Amino acid sequence: MKNYTSINDIDNINSWIDEAKALKTNHLKDVNLGKNKTLGLLFFNSSLRTRLSTQKAALNLGMNPIVMNVSGDAWGIEFGDGTVMNGNTAEHIKEAAAVVSQYCDIIAVRAFPSLTDKAKDESEQVLSAFKKFASVPIVNMESATGHPLQGLTDAITISEHAKVSKPKVVLSWAPHIKALPHAVANSFVQAMQKMDVEFVIANPEGYDLNPEITGNTTIYHNQEDAFKDADFVYTKNWSSYKDYGKINNTDPNWMITKDKIGDAKFMHCLPVRRNVVVEDAVLDSKSSLVIEQANNRTYAAQLVLKKILENL
Amino acid sequence: MKNYTSINDIDNINSWIDEAKALKTNHLKDVNLGKNKTLGLLFFNSSLRTRLSTQKAALNLGMNPIVMNVSGDAWGIEFGDGTVMNGNTAEHIKEAAAVVSQYCDIIAVRAFPSLTDKAKDESEQVLSAFKKFASVPIVNMESATGHPLQGLTDAITISEHAKVSKPKVVLSWAPHIKALPHAVANSFVQAMQKMDVEFVIANPEGYDLNPEITGNTTIYHNQEDAFKDADFVYTKNWSSYKDYGKINNTDPNWMITKDKIGDAKFMHCLPVRRNVVVEDAVLDSKSSLVIEQANNRTYAAQLVLKKILENL
Amino acid sequence: MKNYTSINDIDNINSWIDEAKALKTNHLKDVNLGKNKTLGLLFFNSSLRTRLSTQKAALNLGMNPIVMNVSGDAWGIEFGDGTVMNGNTAEHIKEAAAVVSQYCDIIAVRAFPSLTDKAKDESEQVLSAFKKFASVPIVNMESATGHPLQGLTDAITISEHAKVSKPKVVLSWAPHIKALPHAVANSFVQAMQKMDVEFVIANPEGYDLNPEITGNTTIYHNQEDAFKDADFVYTKNWSSYKDYGKINNTDPNWMITKDKIGDAKFMHCLPVRRNVVVEDAVLDSKSSLVIEQANNRTYAAQLVLKKILENL
Repeated sequence: MKNYTSINDIDNINSWIDEAKALKTNHLKDVNLGKNKTLGLLFFNSSLRTRLSTQKAALNLGMNPIVMNVSGDAWGIEFGDGTVMNGNTAEHIKEAAAVVSQYCDIIAVRAFPSLTDKAKDESEQVLSAFKKFASVPIVNMESATGHPLQGLTDAITISEHAKVSKPKVVLSWAPHIKALPHAVANSFVQAMQKMDVEFVIANPEGYDLNPEITGNTTIYHNQEDAFKDADFVYTKNWSSYKDYGKINNTDPNWMITKDKIGDAKFMHCLPVRRNVVVEDAVLDSKSSLVIEQANNRTYAAQLVLKKILENL
Repeated sequence: MKNYTSINDIDNINSWIDEAKALKTNHLKDVNLGKNKTLGLLFFNSSLRTRLSTQKAALNLGMNPIVMNVSGDAWGIEFGDGTVMNGNTAEHIKEAAAVVSQYCDIIAVRAFPSLTDKAKDESEQVLSAFKKFASVPIVNMESATGHPLQGLTDAITISEHAKVSKPKVVLSWAPHIKALPHAVANSFVQAMQKMDVEFVIANPEGYDLNPEITGNTTIYHNQEDAFKDADFVYTKNWSSYKDYGKINNTDPNWMITKDKIGDAKFMHCLPVRRNVVVEDAVLDSKSSLVIEQANNRTYAAQLVLKKILENL
Repeated sequence: MKNYTSINDIDNINSWIDEAKALKTNHLKDVNLGKNKTLGLLFFNSSLRTRLSTQKAALNLGMNPIVMNVSGDAWGIEFGDGTVMNGNTAEHIKEAAAVVSQYCDIIAVRAFPSLTDKAKDESEQVLSAFKKFASVPIVNMESATGHPLQGLTDAITISEHAKVSKPKVVLSWAPHIKALPHAVANSFVQAMQKMDVEFVIANPEGYDLNPEITGNTTIYHNQEDAFKDADFVYTKNWSSYKDYGKINNTDPNWMITKDKIGDAKFMHCLPVRRNVVVEDAVLDSKSSLVIEQANNRTYAAQLVLKKILENL
């Protein structure tokens, strides 16, 4: 594997899950693999879990992480082709990506979507530019349309907590006050489509995700129907895809409650707004897997870095 | 020892001072103790000495420090119980603390007081929340009401420079243009109360510290009387405790001068505003211990981390 | 060598170039030299290449880098002598430099000029203060008037790509929309003056660099004349030195084009504004050495740190 930029880069999700569980059991078994190798973590946007877990994963492999907040520590990066750069951007991605490749053995990038320009977001401007102009492997730490480290994490977590051979997993939209990206939902959908689960989606009308991603997955517009016999309820807000980036629904009836999910396990990528997306009673119950998901972020990242290091 | 959040966590200050001096003599003697262990340093507020010395201490123990400016690198954290999070905070401390605990073997936190809400500050909202919701040990890198790494540092420094068996130590308030916290003063008072010194406080009327902390310690409202025969003059501004967080006095006559302190050693936690808190002639003289105090910050932090690591 | 703050600190540029090339061939040969030693990187200004390459250089020597954005992570630093500090600065450089020296074995500093106060900039207020008040070696990561890590990098790169024994090297001004410092140009001039090259400068009238630095170097005010038979065209914008810090010329005819430079190698320190300073056709051609320059930043920094470490 060269890059890890999408769930589609996982060749066999079941074997990846097994490998990640092995790393979790013995997290220092490859502590010499990344010795004297550097992971550059470039943040165009805020981060807590990804920032810390990816550093921790690198350290578990003996790598040296170098963190940079691109906008705050450096300056505006230009992505346009042929631009006369007499505006607010001071360095072109062609140079920036090639230059960072001189100092880092692997580059991990976080760059959120605009949520205003669908075509630009779907072109994955930043991530694609790094893939094109960097000379070292690229890891996606959440891009405009995907968050494959989270998707892999979620697959691992479901595998760990499944009590039946083919559990029912529901991805449910929930309300939020801000317009949020589709990245986490997209990667979760793609991960579930690769696993041996019964997978359905629940979201209000007008909130269907990109049909090229959801494909044949059943979409309910009635949450109660979708939740019937669910083993896992994975919750996430996203803004409208059709009416791109807009908030057309904040219906509090879509908030996740203990009553609604019963004994199903609750999952969320975090950060989560309590009593907006999900009520306290769920998050504070034994049904919540959110902290264990966060824990598994380390091993998802560690597995990805390990596979890239082995291929350098 | 699990957490180090207050001077009260020191069981025997004299033996701690001896242990810190031993680390100072041979700062790499435990360089394998923290191998493959991670210290998370979370800053809700600015820092220079604490930021650098705590990282250095971790490195001296072979630990991997990971630094995060919480507000700048991530987002607003919610501390309220049962809050409907439809405002400016994006993640609850319940999740944040539990999540960071997945990636760090020890978490160090800096979070200053509001200086507007005494009850909230005295509840140590941030520090208490980390103690409650984190699953790993917590180190206080200055909280609303205490700065115990500084207090330990100061005890070490006084022990190193004492020329008599029971030196006289004066904590003196000095003027400042901004409303400052009581944390450093509180921890210094608590440290001195544990040491075999003659300890008094000098501050203007209306500026007495929290009486639950000062206890039986003599408080002078006349600086000259307090300074008589002093061996050490420890200086610090703080805002009013009674008229909470207010600046009711900026009397330049309380500034520390060479004339006032004579041969006494001058101490300050830094940063210090020259010619407002203390005149150049003091800071630039051999009587000043401020740089040596800063040096001892490393060994105070290293001792605390070592004790926690030995107990993991 | 104690400090590295100017190209003048290079005793023999040819032997330094040879040593840097040896490090490039075997970049981990001194990986134990800096073990348990700390490099503090203090940024008063933004940085990308310098931030990453200097960390990478430290890691190649086994050092622990600690990075701090002074203004963002800490507070305003006072440089005035005898100042009554009742304004926006909270800590004097006398304390700050001495304190950081307690935690770092070497301190690297970046501090740009004001471009409004020539005398202050030429006094190198920040860098000089660190040299004066720090007790450990200082490395200049670009100061008001010099960028000697870049100058050394450029000397290495020219040496690697020279096809004749005494190549012709031209430093050419190019237009820019912002007022930029003279630091890179100054250090490049000083480096070329030490090398066995035919060196000339091309800039518009009114844009001559500090004559104390350019000395006997020929200055053309006609770019075409200067470029004749050039082997290397090093391009950089700078604001006026005479009319200090002003932009009096943005003539697009000074932009570097493929037509102008022919087969000459193109060099620039980066970041570079495409199609303002230089056209795409140059940067995207085989003639461009800019990425290789960025690569050599690591070995220039590594050589400097190595020489300092060997002398500690």
